[in-house]
Amino acid sequence: MKESKKRDHLAMERMMYFSDAVFAIAITLLVIEIKVPSLGREATNPGLAVALAGIIPQVFGFVVSFLLIGQMWIEHHRMCLIIESLDRGLLWRNLLLLLFVAFLPFPTALMSEYHELGLAVSLYALSFAAQGVAKASFWRHAVRRKLFAHDVEWNEVLRIGRRVWATPLTCGCVAGLAILGVPFAYAGFALIPLVALLLDRMLPKTSAAAA
Amino acid sequence: MKESKKRDHLAMERMMYFSDAVFAIAITLLVIEIKVPSLGREATNPGLAVALAGIIPQVFGFVVSFLLIGQMWIEHHRMCLIIESLDRGLLWRNLLLLLFVAFLPFPTALMSEYHELGLAVSLYALSFAAQGVAKASFWRHAVRRKLFAHDVEWNEVLRIGRRVWATPLTCGCVAGLAILGVPFAYAGFALIPLVALLLDRMLPKTSAAAA
Amino acid sequence: MKESKKRDHLAMERMMYFSDAVFAIAITLLVIEIKVPSLGREATNPGLAVALAGIIPQVFGFVVSFLLIGQMWIEHHRMCLIIESLDRGLLWRNLLLLLFVAFLPFPTALMSEYHELGLAVSLYALSFAAQGVAKASFWRHAVRRKLFAHDVEWNEVLRIGRRVWATPLTCGCVAGLAILGVPFAYAGFALIPLVALLLDRMLPKTSAAAA
Amino acid sequence: MKESKKRDHLAMERMMYFSDAVFAIAITLLVIEIKVPSLGREATNPGLAVALAGIIPQVFGFVVSFLLIGQMWIEHHRMCLIIESLDRGLLWRNLLLLLFVAFLPFPTALMSEYHELGLAVSLYALSFAAQGVAKASFWRHAVRRKLFAHDVEWNEVLRIGRRVWATPLTCGCVAGLAILGVPFAYAGFALIPLVALLLDRMLPKTSAAAA
Repeated sequence: MKESKKRDHLAMERMMYFSDAVFAIAITLLVIEIKVPSLGREATNPGLAVALAGIIPQVFGFVVSFLLIGQMWIEHHRMCLIIESLDRGLLWRNLLLLLFVAFLPFPTALMSEYHELGLAVSLYALSFAAQGVAKASFWRHAVRRKLFAHDVEWNEVLRIGRRVWATPLTCGCVAGLAILGVPFAYAGFALIPLVALLLDRMLPKTSAAAA
Repeated sequence: MKESKKRDHLAMERMMYFSDAVFAIAITLLVIEIKVPSLGREATNPGLAVALAGIIPQVFGFVVSFLLIGQMWIEHHRMCLIIESLDRGLLWRNLLLLLFVAFLPFPTALMSEYHELGLAVSLYALSFAAQGVAKASFWRHAVRRKLFAHDVEWNEVLRIGRRVWATPLTCGCVAGLAILGVPFAYAGFALIPLVALLLDRMLPKTSAAAA
Repeated sequence: MKESKKRDHLAMERMMYFSDAVFAIAITLLVIEIKVPSLGREATNPGLAVALAGIIPQVFGFVVSFLLIGQMWIEHHRMCLIIESLDRGLLWRNLLLLLFVAFLPFPTALMSEYHELGLAVSLYALSFAAQGVAKASFWRHAVRRKLFAHDVEWNEVLRIGRRVWATPLTCGCVAGLAILGVPFAYAGFALIPLVALLLDRMLPKTSAAAA
Repeated sequence: MKESKKRDHLAMERMMYFSDAVFAIAITLLVIEIKVPSLGREATNPGLAVALAGIIPQVFGFVVSFLLIGQMWIEHHRMCLIIESLDRGLLWRNLLLLLFVAFLPFPTALMSEYHELGLAVSLYALSFAAQGVAKASFWRHAVRRKLFAHDVEWNEVLRIGRRVWATPLTCGCVAGLAILGVPFAYAGFALIPLVALLLDRMLPKTSAAAA
């Protein structure tokens, strides 16, 4: 049985490293979308400065996507630290989550190109929302099957389960506002940490009762 | 001898991480094939919606390839958990398997571009079949050389050895049907889990006798 | 408590592997910027030789960026070996550091294309400087929160804290000189190891007093 | 001292994983060079078959490069299993080795495009030779500093030190023959395992004397 526990641990580790690699590649591929401007004969310092000013939206999109994916990775990281064993259901839910992560370079490129179009912003936000829902389902499965270490704090499990909804909720709202034509709807992404905090503070009595 | 066992373990771990990285990169590179449509002056929400409808086959191809590679990774994952030591033959068989994995972004791009051509679908299916045959040979080598942990269940070894043929058999049939011009032959990919289940249930008496 | 220490260790390991993957991808993506020249009808050995001579700046840029990122990785490697536990602040500071690492293929491509323009060289140098400042802040956080192993040599901690400034200082100077139009300002990158050595030798008395 | 040994182990592990990631990315990036042919109106099965026949050299180049890099990875793998501790010199030599590995997608693309030109074949072979020389220097450093585990077999160390020259010697000859215009010089790559075997058998008396 000790041997099988070691194997559990190895299985979990490998799922984490595979996920890390997918996160790392998705986060690094983002930079490919920032194209070096072609100046032709205007290859002077002022000409380059003007051209670079034109790609500021792309750089901005890179930074936003990097931070959002980074936040998603940190969340995944925290979840996996607590999970001790895995089953086939968790593996497939993790794969679904990674499907949305691996897809993100596309909506990022789309938004860099058409950031003035509500539809592009909306699809971008929906991609992050979909990842968030997949992560919530991943966590729910772990809770139901009790795949945690024995000494895990149940309070922490409940808190993570609430905080995980911050991304889908906020991104869903951003998507709705963007498609309705509200300008600068994407500024709403900055509210994710705040929403996470609010969700964290919610329902303290229930969690105390459960603990 | 204890030291050499630790080294065995490290060798196996490193082969797994290298494989994980190749799987992760292949699965993430798929998204590069989904190109942002260039709209020119029609950069309006409806114009973008029409353009995006045109790349639905690419997105569909991305999802199918992601799930197929993901299923291949899960299968590889399960095999490697049971294998305890490795030899030169296993390393090379694993490399051959990774060759087909790393090649997959090309047939995926080919199928995204020419999904209405039977030849493209057929080559796509054959690539997955080739990976499956390589994996079956990988597993057969492990069985012959008895590279497993001592406490491994022989039944599990036999089951994996049967299930591994689900991908080559199904993909081989899809390739044949596609080249014969059968429309929607690629829908056959959805049968892989079913075929795996059928193979799993086969020959239970033999496996009981062997166990 | 032992269990929680194991979890600390795992958390740290995972942050390292994620960082390694980002470093590895950024360092390997650099080569994508070296384009195969298209020769058309002049596809002869001398024609190819002439064309290849034209991309020497790109190859040079690849080598310089590779060595700079490599040096950054080695520095990160040394820091993480000493750090034993991590908190949320360290994770985010690490993510900020990786943001600059993942961004590097863009200024590298920019400099390959416009190496004769001071602005391109300056932005290139500033990107490395920004990464260096992020790393200094990462280290400062670890020092303040005392996230080290118990048996760590304090002298080593102080030395790393001084040496980390070699990249930002040198790259900042290169950026200033390049924008002022000084030719071959980028030769200054070669001084980073020397500056690191000088910083290392500085203030030996203070460090002795602290130790 | 036990703590410092654990740190040595971790440092070595991290160098291996970083190297693995670079190898894995370089080996997977190769496929990007195989471009999907654009058929325009001839999008028929026979038209696609003809177009695909035209990219057979690219596919062949992918397979050859994959196997060569795979063989390099297996060699690196075997070396790192024996090395137990590392110093700054080994880290930098490893980085130099990875520089050549990360560079390989470029000469591969060059050779795919201009496989009929001796210069392209020669540069391709030289890139592999350079990687081999870097690896020999990596190994030599490990031997000189005695960075091995205590129970390592000295015979194995000597054999690896001889076999490592198979790639530089063979690839150097291929480069020379290709530049002299010998057709199919690249067929020489297939001799690497044979040369490795010959080197392995050489000087058995000296190694016996040393052991």
